[in-house]
Amino acid sequence: MTPFEVPEGDPFGPHNLPYGVFSPAGSEHRTVGVRLGDHVLDAGAAARALGSPYAALLARPTLNPLLAAGRTAWSDVRRALTAWVTVPSHQETVAPFLHPLSSVTLHLPFEVADYVDFYASENHARNVGQIFRPDAADSLTPNWKHLPIGYHGRAGTVVVSGTDVVRPSGQRRVPGEDAPVFGPSVRLDIEAEVGFVVGVPSRLGRPVPLADFREHVFGLCLLNDWSARDIQAWEYVPLGPFLGKSFATSVSAWITPLDALEEARVRPPERTHPLLPYLDDSEEEPGGYDLRISVAVNGHVVSEPPFSTMYWTAAQQLAHLTVNGASLRTGDLYASGTVSGPEPGQRGSLLELTWNGRDPLELPDGKRTFLEDGDVVTLSAWAPGPHSVRVGLGEVTGRIVAG
Amino acid sequence: MTPFEVPEGDPFGPHNLPYGVFSPAGSEHRTVGVRLGDHVLDAGAAARALGSPYAALLARPTLNPLLAAGRTAWSDVRRALTAWVTVPSHQETVAPFLHPLSSVTLHLPFEVADYVDFYASENHARNVGQIFRPDAADSLTPNWKHLPIGYHGRAGTVVVSGTDVVRPSGQRRVPGEDAPVFGPSVRLDIEAEVGFVVGVPSRLGRPVPLADFREHVFGLCLLNDWSARDIQAWEYVPLGPFLGKSFATSVSAWITPLDALEEARVRPPERTHPLLPYLDDSEEEPGGYDLRISVAVNGHVVSEPPFSTMYWTAAQQLAHLTVNGASLRTGDLYASGTVSGPEPGQRGSLLELTWNGRDPLELPDGKRTFLEDGDVVTLSAWAPGPHSVRVGLGEVTGRIVAG
Repeated sequence: MTPFEVPEGDPFGPHNLPYGVFSPAGSEHRTVGVRLGDHVLDAGAAARALGSPYAALLARPTLNPLLAAGRTAWSDVRRALTAWVTVPSHQETVAPFLHPLSSVTLHLPFEVADYVDFYASENHARNVGQIFRPDAADSLTPNWKHLPIGYHGRAGTVVVSGTDVVRPSGQRRVPGEDAPVFGPSVRLDIEAEVGFVVGVPSRLGRPVPLADFREHVFGLCLLNDWSARDIQAWEYVPLGPFLGKSFATSVSAWITPLDALEEARVRPPERTHPLLPYLDDSEEEPGGYDLRISVAVNGHVVSEPPFSTMYWTAAQQLAHLTVNGASLRTGDLYASGTVSGPEPGQRGSLLELTWNGRDPLELPDGKRTFLEDGDVVTLSAWAPGPHSVRVGLGEVTGRIVAG
Repeated sequence: MTPFEVPEGDPFGPHNLPYGVFSPAGSEHRTVGVRLGDHVLDAGAAARALGSPYAALLARPTLNPLLAAGRTAWSDVRRALTAWVTVPSHQETVAPFLHPLSSVTLHLPFEVADYVDFYASENHARNVGQIFRPDAADSLTPNWKHLPIGYHGRAGTVVVSGTDVVRPSGQRRVPGEDAPVFGPSVRLDIEAEVGFVVGVPSRLGRPVPLADFREHVFGLCLLNDWSARDIQAWEYVPLGPFLGKSFATSVSAWITPLDALEEARVRPPERTHPLLPYLDDSEEEPGGYDLRISVAVNGHVVSEPPFSTMYWTAAQQLAHLTVNGASLRTGDLYASGTVSGPEPGQRGSLLELTWNGRDPLELPDGKRTFLEDGDVVTLSAWAPGPHSVRVGLGEVTGRIVAG
């Protein structure tokens, strides 16, 4: 069987073709790769061998040139790649540029410009509200149903899947004490999220309307927004999360193009409040995505958050992010916020899964409230694809190491 | 008089030599410039003409290569530049590379990596607390005296002095109404700040101690953190400021190296609370800077905030920013937060100067609570230099235009 004969039903078949950046075994050279089954195609080398003009976009150490090229180029390149891995005459030419996935090193696939994190799951926001403000009349803040709440995170500490996460130290308050103590976080958590990658920039002062979402956004990845709950709780009033988040954000090594997710588009949940015109998507194409996420700690699945339950869509988030005239750059990354479904087994953070530590998780290797050193967290996901075949999203994994 | 004969007492004499990036008249070519009096020296061209090895750092379209070169290189380059503009034999060689300041176009001097904004003025934080929480027992939040509060802002909308600022639109709440309205901000404000520019990166997982501040930070600029108070008030609970800030942040075109500000170093105000060891600067060299800022609206000075009154120093901010292991990149920018002194005429925002609009400012062209379209805001500053000569900081100016 050749590498092109991907088993039927493989979530990384030619219907998927996500993009990443890799180095072949024994090399430090970084270049764009496209995943096919258990192999990675050196897309730039393949393009050159075929005399394709797309070599200029693909024989590069990051995805940024491809991201900047725009939707028409994205579709054209995808069509070409599909032909290269499915048409026998092309297969013969590109076969030398296929590398076993297990032999390559995967890198952060793009240079992150600005990183924004949203808070778009109603279930998550309500869980957090109930945990931290149990006496409030409404578990949501008054603005929650009117705008997708977001904040800027640290772009420079976005790391690729597989990077160890050093347990952060910082200030935390001990109940009953006025002054904080300092030390390693004792409430280190995950947030299972989906990240959206901006390709085409926008001009300062010009909002991006809902309908232009697909002109600017290239694709999506899985994202773990590691969170030190104790550091965050002490620091976040009044200017929001800072050191509780900025130590690391992990993303999957594979960026799935939106073009591979056409069958996964769904309408978001019904809106309970009227939306201002710039956020009103009732007349737009479906803005949600049916992504089935799985959260595993040390190989044990602890949650299966459904992305289709997100109240705010990625298109709404982009429209909101730019409505004040803020411009986009190639490589901007914005994340959904923790994905939590309505059921207890669908929560995307340990904070919610253990109800702030009250109800520890029972894992094969012991109880967990928050993460322990040595724990490995892995997010994976798939989406419905054409002909009932799944579209696999790349996984994002990280191991906690002591500081 | 040659351009080298800068008048005695000129704040941009050879004791200063701030760095920027400029294009000569009629050219789009960007290169590093050094300000001398009313002229700009094309530093890269001068270096080449003199056969200096520093041409590789200076004949560049941004300051980033120089920023990355590190403290020893920074000092060596500064020493060389000083010789080029003061030693007659060198002056003759570099004279052709001096351009009248009025003839050049100034650009954003460096590529901004991450942008963080702090909240380090006790006077500012107390004023804001009294305005928004008049019934609180303490105008400071409980964490304020224990850590320099900060948050990430949008790096992609940092613009150079002189760039027009488009009045942002967004959601704001009308008192007595449940749902927000949408429209141009009606409470557009300034924040007079000082920005610090990181040169040398740090490793993920490795905090930067207080004592290493000068190994990482190259210099400082003036910064106006434009703020839409109405947008900010509606959005900022619970995750902090987002669209109320992200539409634009203006920086001066000139970066003053720390080496030019040795005489301006001062001890920060006495600390009222014990500090955790990583923030305790009582045994360190003075971490404050005596910068005298001036805020003008349409040419009329409305405030003179003294930077020496800031409670948290730039070194403490850097130590805090990295104590969780977050890494630094060349081009990271972090700002002090609004600089406000103890006197009413020393407040760094219109929010404080007008006490949230209650006490309008009387300007020659009428009353002001917040900014009107067409208003031009200019921050300028100087610091004590050698032999009682002032060190001029570049100004940062911006005009408000309708959206």
